[in-house]
Amino acid sequence: MGIRALGGLFMSATTATVPSASTIEAVKEKGKRLSILSMMSTTAAGSGHPTSCMSAAELVAGTFFYAMKFDPKNPNSPDGDRFVLSKGHAAPILYAAFAEAGVFPESRVMTLRQFSSELEGHPTPRIPGVDAATGSLGQGLSVGAGLAIGARMDKSPTRVYVLMGDGEMAEGQIWEAAAFAGHYKLDNLTAIADVNALGQSEPTMYRHDMEIYRKKFEAEGWDAQVIDGHDVAAVLTALDRAKTIKGKPQAILARTIKGHGVSFLAGKEHWHGKPIPKDQLSAAIKEIGTPIDLPPDPGRSYARTSLPKPPDFPTPAAPDYDPSKPIATREAYGFALKRLGAVNPHIVAISGDVKNSTFSEIFGDAFPDHFYQGYIAEQNLVSAGVGLAARGKVPFLDTFACFLARAYDQVRMAAISRSNINLCGSHCGVSIGEDGPSQMALEDIAIFRAVHSSSVFYPSDAVSAERLTEIMARREGINYLRTSRPKMPILYSKDEKFPVPGFKVLRKSPQDKVTVIGAGVTLHEALKAADQLKSEGIPVCVIDLYCVKPIDGKAVAEQITATGGRLITVEDHWPEGGIGEAVLSALAQVGVAPSKSRLIAVRDMPHSGRPDELVDAFGISARHIVEAVRAIA
Amino acid sequence: MGIRALGGLFMSATTATVPSASTIEAVKEKGKRLSILSMMSTTAAGSGHPTSCMSAAELVAGTFFYAMKFDPKNPNSPDGDRFVLSKGHAAPILYAAFAEAGVFPESRVMTLRQFSSELEGHPTPRIPGVDAATGSLGQGLSVGAGLAIGARMDKSPTRVYVLMGDGEMAEGQIWEAAAFAGHYKLDNLTAIADVNALGQSEPTMYRHDMEIYRKKFEAEGWDAQVIDGHDVAAVLTALDRAKTIKGKPQAILARTIKGHGVSFLAGKEHWHGKPIPKDQLSAAIKEIGTPIDLPPDPGRSYARTSLPKPPDFPTPAAPDYDPSKPIATREAYGFALKRLGAVNPHIVAISGDVKNSTFSEIFGDAFPDHFYQGYIAEQNLVSAGVGLAARGKVPFLDTFACFLARAYDQVRMAAISRSNINLCGSHCGVSIGEDGPSQMALEDIAIFRAVHSSSVFYPSDAVSAERLTEIMARREGINYLRTSRPKMPILYSKDEKFPVPGFKVLRKSPQDKVTVIGAGVTLHEALKAADQLKSEGIPVCVIDLYCVKPIDGKAVAEQITATGGRLITVEDHWPEGGIGEAVLSALAQVGVAPSKSRLIAVRDMPHSGRPDELVDAFGISARHIVEAVRAIA
Repeated sequence: MGIRALGGLFMSATTATVPSASTIEAVKEKGKRLSILSMMSTTAAGSGHPTSCMSAAELVAGTFFYAMKFDPKNPNSPDGDRFVLSKGHAAPILYAAFAEAGVFPESRVMTLRQFSSELEGHPTPRIPGVDAATGSLGQGLSVGAGLAIGARMDKSPTRVYVLMGDGEMAEGQIWEAAAFAGHYKLDNLTAIADVNALGQSEPTMYRHDMEIYRKKFEAEGWDAQVIDGHDVAAVLTALDRAKTIKGKPQAILARTIKGHGVSFLAGKEHWHGKPIPKDQLSAAIKEIGTPIDLPPDPGRSYARTSLPKPPDFPTPAAPDYDPSKPIATREAYGFALKRLGAVNPHIVAISGDVKNSTFSEIFGDAFPDHFYQGYIAEQNLVSAGVGLAARGKVPFLDTFACFLARAYDQVRMAAISRSNINLCGSHCGVSIGEDGPSQMALEDIAIFRAVHSSSVFYPSDAVSAERLTEIMARREGINYLRTSRPKMPILYSKDEKFPVPGFKVLRKSPQDKVTVIGAGVTLHEALKAADQLKSEGIPVCVIDLYCVKPIDGKAVAEQITATGGRLITVEDHWPEGGIGEAVLSALAQVGVAPSKSRLIAVRDMPHSGRPDELVDAFGISARHIVEAVRAIA
Repeated sequence: MGIRALGGLFMSATTATVPSASTIEAVKEKGKRLSILSMMSTTAAGSGHPTSCMSAAELVAGTFFYAMKFDPKNPNSPDGDRFVLSKGHAAPILYAAFAEAGVFPESRVMTLRQFSSELEGHPTPRIPGVDAATGSLGQGLSVGAGLAIGARMDKSPTRVYVLMGDGEMAEGQIWEAAAFAGHYKLDNLTAIADVNALGQSEPTMYRHDMEIYRKKFEAEGWDAQVIDGHDVAAVLTALDRAKTIKGKPQAILARTIKGHGVSFLAGKEHWHGKPIPKDQLSAAIKEIGTPIDLPPDPGRSYARTSLPKPPDFPTPAAPDYDPSKPIATREAYGFALKRLGAVNPHIVAISGDVKNSTFSEIFGDAFPDHFYQGYIAEQNLVSAGVGLAARGKVPFLDTFACFLARAYDQVRMAAISRSNINLCGSHCGVSIGEDGPSQMALEDIAIFRAVHSSSVFYPSDAVSAERLTEIMARREGINYLRTSRPKMPILYSKDEKFPVPGFKVLRKSPQDKVTVIGAGVTLHEALKAADQLKSEGIPVCVIDLYCVKPIDGKAVAEQITATGGRLITVEDHWPEGGIGEAVLSALAQVGVAPSKSRLIAVRDMPHSGRPDELVDAFGISARHIVEAVRAIA
């Protein structure tokens, strides 16, 4: 069993069994080799976290070389078991395990952290076998839960292993994920906790009190086993037992020693994130086992050259709205998802207990097997989406736009993961009205623009909301849709196209004095202002900037130049990082600057009131646009 | 005992006791009145969450009118017990309790959610008695923990009560706070969970399985009691018992019914966030008790006019650096905090297990009673800071800049709380080097700029880092300090002043062709570029933009105009929302546009490498600045 896997394609025990003495010995040797390679590579790099690797050596060896089924020639295959290194700073031991498994040569680990190497300081999907970037702690269990749900949807026997540190178990997201996995009875998910009792700066909160962790996982409906993480027989037995548990995820809670195996490191503080000095390396290696002599690395890169793209799908049914009936863009999002679900079986939606506000319930009611209740746990919502995307699903994740701020670090990490995820944030801006500022997203454009690989869409009617949702399902990267609470008139025919980048010119004449750019409620305010100004003899150009990122600066510049360089932007958002700055920045990129401009935005802290009262009181209504136009026309 | 408090200044049992039948009856009546006022005010408003109030009626009545000591004439006094409504959507019952207590007239609750009323849809500190805004769920327990720690530091007998909903207990932050409060043995903190089993869109994950909640709190070292939340005797007994527990925070886990007391609401789905229709209100009220006849509200505002400011303090010792020795700004932050601690007893620092990287340990070693280990739980870190600030402390909260993204929703809510908190994010940008992108903050300027009331400081040497830290301690609002990992040369003498807004002109001649604006590592690259360009006969003006928000647009415009309107910004940050856009936006506000500009920023996803390799490879080094200057000069 198991140990035969050491030769090539890994094989594992499929029923609970007693590992043989020779198996235990072989895994023990693998663990020593992983520890030694972790020390060697970090000392060579001059930085890194060897002691955080050494506490996990037997856990990683047992998981990779005993428990997992995994094809080292195709390490990202969804058919293989998956391993998520949630404690990303232990990257060197992950790379050592991949090397030992034959994913790349052992010599490659000695390029750790070099500019030219794919073996980065923390794992990213540039590295073969890695599904998601880790290194911001506490996110891996959610990613693993997403992978596990995806595997279950695919009826795949794939198992998912997540290695966590105890330091990161202070992150609330771990417990969001534990609750989520327990609730959905993800018995194909095994979490392994490397409880080495030392954080970066001092001992962890619970040190080696293993029973606290047991109680916490058991409370969430998990099977939990406490073991000595350096006892290979115990590790293998626990891994075997985990596979036999039905209807529950399993936690293997391993008591370990940071820096295990080397006397001057083991259990010592002040060694976190420090490589072993060159002159002490050989002594340290000798304490663990035999020195490893590696050939010079030939310098061939093993970076993954192709990363997953969203799967293609047939054109969905066109939007179908009565042009005389106003409808909210948030509701159109729900209809769009439902139409997409009919032609794209990869779509999976998760809502943060607001499906009846964001309208993802329209999709959920139509495709209940593709819809998950995410409860009020936005961090897990986003990272689980990253796991789903890594398995080829097309996740649509929704909550109020302001609450996506709760998962901003997870979105940031999703970008580093080169993940293709779609986020819908409803209830943007002061136009939500009476609920008050805690429910108003006034920073979402800024924060989503500042994500690498992101696209930011902001529809102003139901047709564009639907079309942009379809575009998101086909588009790589982090896609964000900003939807609005109020009903708004239909602007476009159902066959209108919405290229990315792009915008629509809704009012235009050769006499236009100013270009006014808006989106969402402010576009409708701009249209009202334009009608009034036209009657006053001041025609203006009005642009619907449905795509806030990317922006075609040249095309925008042409419009603005045609109105004498006079520009007004107006947005239901803070001025910082919003539409105004996005437009100025896009113009600067093509060497154009407006001759006169006004960036109209929300500048004071709003409070409760009716939407129309707030839009006016906080300075973004037609009246304010008219005044601004008069001032610069 | 207790019930006598109903008349005016509240009094409570100070030892465990058996509440009398008349006390129970009186609190029961109060609970009914609170329910009825919650229904009346939301129906009048036409929106709001009456059923979420009704589940908590007896809990709120018992807490306010039996357990708490509280002066309704001075409801924010730190001498009184504190009440944090973590489930902020139950605001109407909080306002009803304040009204019943005499903070404002009962008629005032009928102005709920109106534009002209301070009684917003969710609580904010504009409302007397409220310490922190709630409404983004799961943050109140952390705020309560901060208040409780502050009270303990002040040796105050103040107790802190936090009312949570079960829906929000899916948020990981609740469990970060529970761990934190348990670890610090905050026995002056009582959490009351209103477990009504219904979320917004469907039943909660655990419905009425009270034992799960009990296990979770007990695992964190809390005393936990499960009660029937509508049994007033049980509520009062639990509140009494909580006061007797020493060395542990206490959780009162109350099984409740959403919409309790009204047959067509009680325990029914699809009533979340819906007021009772006008034509059903009177029937609903009759099911609970006697209709309440209120006079018309006279319209007098009760909004708090003065909110807490950071306390003044004497000038600390000046920075003291050898001008020939480079030092990192992150280290200077630690020295600054220590110097401040010597003159300002209100300073409290919390670090997210990185005190040896952010250097807050320098302060912690000097003032151990003013330093808390926050472990790896950034959300709790920030919200606990809000609680400390509400008690008049001056919190300094630190972690890597990228991990502050983990707490962005909490920062957003801190702004709505009109909180005065100071955040230090170290390890910004690609210049951290080998650790790779998961540890690099490339979006922090964007996200902190997009916070109302925020200031963003970005020092380029140790002296400015120290001076800006001192400025933060005196400054209202959300202050963010972006510190850097690499050592950098000293630029300023120890007596240099750093006004806000402001910048320093480090290279200047009448012949300057271009203004180059940088900060942090890019300022030093700009200085190198300027030296090279000068030798090539292309003198440039170099500006240290140590204050990225606010910016004095007029002053910046003068500099840029003096160089023919030619502008280059360079930053170790994504282009979106960073220094470049901040400068363009500030110029636009004063009607100035650069004639030619280049916004140099990090535009590709970075990876591991040496700091100097990365600064160059990702386009922000002196070489790139020189090229950009040549292109537009």
